[in-house]
Amino acid sequence: MWHLYHFPLCPFSRKVQLSLGEKKIGYELVTLYPWDAGDDFRRLNPAGRVPVLHDEEKRVTLIDSQAICEYLEETVADRALIIGSARARAEVRRLVALYDETFFADITGPLLHEKVKKRLVLRQSPDSRTLRETTRLLHEHLDYLDWLVDNRRWLAGAQLSLADFAAAAQLSVVDYLDGIDWTGHQSAHGWYRVIKSRPSFAPLLRQKMDGIPPPKHYSDVNA
Amino acid sequence: MWHLYHFPLCPFSRKVQLSLGEKKIGYELVTLYPWDAGDDFRRLNPAGRVPVLHDEEKRVTLIDSQAICEYLEETVADRALIIGSARARAEVRRLVALYDETFFADITGPLLHEKVKKRLVLRQSPDSRTLRETTRLLHEHLDYLDWLVDNRRWLAGAQLSLADFAAAAQLSVVDYLDGIDWTGHQSAHGWYRVIKSRPSFAPLLRQKMDGIPPPKHYSDVNA
Repeated sequence: MWHLYHFPLCPFSRKVQLSLGEKKIGYELVTLYPWDAGDDFRRLNPAGRVPVLHDEEKRVTLIDSQAICEYLEETVADRALIIGSARARAEVRRLVALYDETFFADITGPLLHEKVKKRLVLRQSPDSRTLRETTRLLHEHLDYLDWLVDNRRWLAGAQLSLADFAAAAQLSVVDYLDGIDWTGHQSAHGWYRVIKSRPSFAPLLRQKMDGIPPPKHYSDVNA
Repeated sequence: MWHLYHFPLCPFSRKVQLSLGEKKIGYELVTLYPWDAGDDFRRLNPAGRVPVLHDEEKRVTLIDSQAICEYLEETVADRALIIGSARARAEVRRLVALYDETFFADITGPLLHEKVKKRLVLRQSPDSRTLRETTRLLHEHLDYLDWLVDNRRWLAGAQLSLADFAAAAQLSVVDYLDGIDWTGHQSAHGWYRVIKSRPSFAPLLRQKMDGIPPPKHYSDVNA
């Protein structure tokens, strides 16, 4: 049985959950906050980070969200998410990296620091300049998302792929923290509603973080 | 003909060059500093970052070092670098991510900021506290590298893989900036000398960054 070490607002664990859900692979969640990673967990992952996908009986430990998704892709044929020709697959991986790295560095990472870590661990107020800067950068990212949605059926091309789930995983965390104003981004919003209503997304909409309640619209698939 | 957009001390472009070199794929370099990325380049890569591998005739544009390496892996059978079973491949990708993300965030990124961007662009002195912290973190990373080398033939297991080249790419930039003290890390040092003496590494040892000369030992394959 797979155990996925995660915490409720980790966008990378969410990407893995979406991949597991799309492929209909069963798993149990183990919650581990980054500030609680002790020696036991470090024996599993020396880098001390989630997500880790672990099967104790089979003695398989998979670390790093992209390494996990590539493994699931190679071992479970059902519902391929890194698809098409080598060029098409490179486009999927380019967009996954854009959301995992650039979007996370610009938006999700700073928001998690300001609105979660400062509240729960550091007991500080969020910095309003940083929040304004993430809002500005989010509009740039949503402009690009609009462009992708206006020019392609799905983000990476004609088929639903891991690129859509990597982007939606990041956005779902920003949305939980009430950080998205969709005004002027109808295309991106329409796409996000479609992804949000998929069965694989339902577990994400139920997961709550203690001390940080989501806004009402967060789990409404029509909002 | 492939053109690789890079700058001489970009560790991710170096990883791609090592992959191209190992697979004996011809290419020409186009130098592009991150602070010079203009609109022309942003038309190629909206994220404005190197490496980008581009073939104008074939109209192929590959973006993100890992997407590029996976593409080369899928299209050029010679000298496989992401190898073995799905589990073995997951271990290669875990280590690639460890060096691309964690090592870069801990060490290569801060060193490039302090020793290159501050000197060439911001005209500031490096911050000695940051430099001390990178030195401390580098020793931790070298301890882990020693452990890998002591327990496995190559970093990810029995075979030379992209993990070795991802690690060596980062270390080569740190070494260019005279940031490595190998004292107490004989295993890691021995492994690095072996990688450094491979023909695929020779172009890296010749590339110089204007205004930032490397230390003498940098291009000496026996040092």
